[in-house]
Amino acid sequence: MKINGIPTRSISLSPDGWSVRILDQRKLPHEVMWVELKTVEEAATAIAEMWTRGAPLLSLTAAYGMCLALRKDASDASLSHAYETLLATRPTAVNLRWALDQMREAVAPVPVELRASAAYERADALCEEDIALNRAIGEHGLKLLKEIAEKKPKGEPLNILTHCNAGWIATVDYGTALAPIYLAHDASIPVHVWVDETRPRNQGALTAWELAQHGVSHTVIVDNAGGLLMRQGRVDLCIVGADRVTKSGDVCNKIGTYLKALAAKDNGVPFYVAVPYTTFDHTIDNGDAIPIEQREAKEVLEIGGHALYAPGTPVVNPAFDVTPARLVTGYITERGIQPGAA
Amino acid sequence: MKINGIPTRSISLSPDGWSVRILDQRKLPHEVMWVELKTVEEAATAIAEMWTRGAPLLSLTAAYGMCLALRKDASDASLSHAYETLLATRPTAVNLRWALDQMREAVAPVPVELRASAAYERADALCEEDIALNRAIGEHGLKLLKEIAEKKPKGEPLNILTHCNAGWIATVDYGTALAPIYLAHDASIPVHVWVDETRPRNQGALTAWELAQHGVSHTVIVDNAGGLLMRQGRVDLCIVGADRVTKSGDVCNKIGTYLKALAAKDNGVPFYVAVPYTTFDHTIDNGDAIPIEQREAKEVLEIGGHALYAPGTPVVNPAFDVTPARLVTGYITERGIQPGAA
Repeated sequence: MKINGIPTRSISLSPDGWSVRILDQRKLPHEVMWVELKTVEEAATAIAEMWTRGAPLLSLTAAYGMCLALRKDASDASLSHAYETLLATRPTAVNLRWALDQMREAVAPVPVELRASAAYERADALCEEDIALNRAIGEHGLKLLKEIAEKKPKGEPLNILTHCNAGWIATVDYGTALAPIYLAHDASIPVHVWVDETRPRNQGALTAWELAQHGVSHTVIVDNAGGLLMRQGRVDLCIVGADRVTKSGDVCNKIGTYLKALAAKDNGVPFYVAVPYTTFDHTIDNGDAIPIEQREAKEVLEIGGHALYAPGTPVVNPAFDVTPARLVTGYITERGIQPGAA
Repeated sequence: MKINGIPTRSISLSPDGWSVRILDQRKLPHEVMWVELKTVEEAATAIAEMWTRGAPLLSLTAAYGMCLALRKDASDASLSHAYETLLATRPTAVNLRWALDQMREAVAPVPVELRASAAYERADALCEEDIALNRAIGEHGLKLLKEIAEKKPKGEPLNILTHCNAGWIATVDYGTALAPIYLAHDASIPVHVWVDETRPRNQGALTAWELAQHGVSHTVIVDNAGGLLMRQGRVDLCIVGADRVTKSGDVCNKIGTYLKALAAKDNGVPFYVAVPYTTFDHTIDNGDAIPIEQREAKEVLEIGGHALYAPGTPVVNPAFDVTPARLVTGYITERGIQPGAA
């Protein structure tokens, strides 16, 4: 999608052909910064400290992290160390493991001297696959948005609520939850996005930024406001991404998603989850069995160095919650829309 | 309740006997500041700009604001002007109008030269009534907390989730939602409070501060987290305050309350609203007819001068939402606990 009118990808190889250029999301929305990763440790830090984020994109950063490790040392020990280091960065994202497995399968059988190039080849392919599948998610979602938009009075925009950032900067391009919205906008369907700010990390600022860059109408709201807007009939549907979807369809996504799904159900607003198929984890049936990443208190206690609370205030900061399948209208995947249990 | 171990009230007359000393909540939790109001305009500013806040306390600040106006000019025109000025400060709080009506009734029939002293007398009495009724809310709530606590395994604290600040600093003393909690704590029932941070104004910081000052165990969470905690069985009940309760029992309270009530219902967690009887507005049946105060974008876009979003980002910032009566387990009032429709 576009930054300042210029089509851009969130991750790519640098002109040197081996180091990895990522959009550093820490300075967004205030500054567009790019950072070059040259070691697996840097890649792991970029994921753990959320220079880069979004389940699909962090998986690809990990894939290139494997390349960086193998370029330096392509031994089995190095491969294994890189795999474990990168896997430990974010415990909730199932496609992180999937991407690392893909990489390991691609390089392990290859002679040591060819592993690095095999790794880059596979990582590049994963990037292209990510773009294609997000575009496919967008196209399936676009049909849905068209159907809902056609039922609205002419000229009224389709109002879509989203939580966190599942936009193009959470992927290589297009995004997951935002892909149908970008395609609808590009197809001249009038859309307006309610952007949940998504405390504690305010990823809504990223969503607002990328929508603004691409020219999509949007309004930021606090996480508390979505329920009221749904009661007032000002939300036509919700679309969110996910970090993991269980066999039974339970959705593990950014903390607060469950509350929006409850409000959607209570108000007859369709609630969709847009995810690549790799987000489905068939090894887990019940969402409550998913380990929930706990993040540091500082994310809640401070914003931009400004203390919101008295020093030492106790905090619990879970990063994800579980939305039961019964609240989900459908899953928008690259293979089509799979109905939920709502 | 206590500040630094010293029993304190949030509003009182200054030693000069006529100006009004209020706890200035803008610097909390970082600094305990007191401000002296000397004119009705200062009182109106203190309410509108939320130096003081909480439906009961702002009503009392308005009552003393009437005193300040009448002390200067006790004419009918001045009375009328003060009434309108103070009423316009916060449109959602029904007991603001109630308190102003009480004041007008007390002073209007009195000769002009006696109006100021009649006003102070009535405002003082309203303060004492507020303390007594909040203590009564606390006592009725305490019985409820005892019942629920007795069903818990011995030694486990009773976990109560609250939203916004309906504590003693939102009243003269005790608070509404927090009154039962303070009395339970003082009665040595182990309680632990989950404190919603309550974006955009983070009144959770006030709740955390006053609980800490009184020695009550608590943990701050982002507004997004309560649903997960309820799914995990870590919340025994919710207690919130309200700005208005309709004839049918719909609850208008701080934005986000509705989402917590939905989560409580979904997880079988009792959801209580603690309010003085004056919060019931029998002139409105359906909560969706209550005008919702819209506040400025800046509250969302900035925290402590730190910009969270790109300049010009569109924002909608409703201050309240409506929780339908069907989600409310009961209303804890000074007259006892009235069952809700949940």
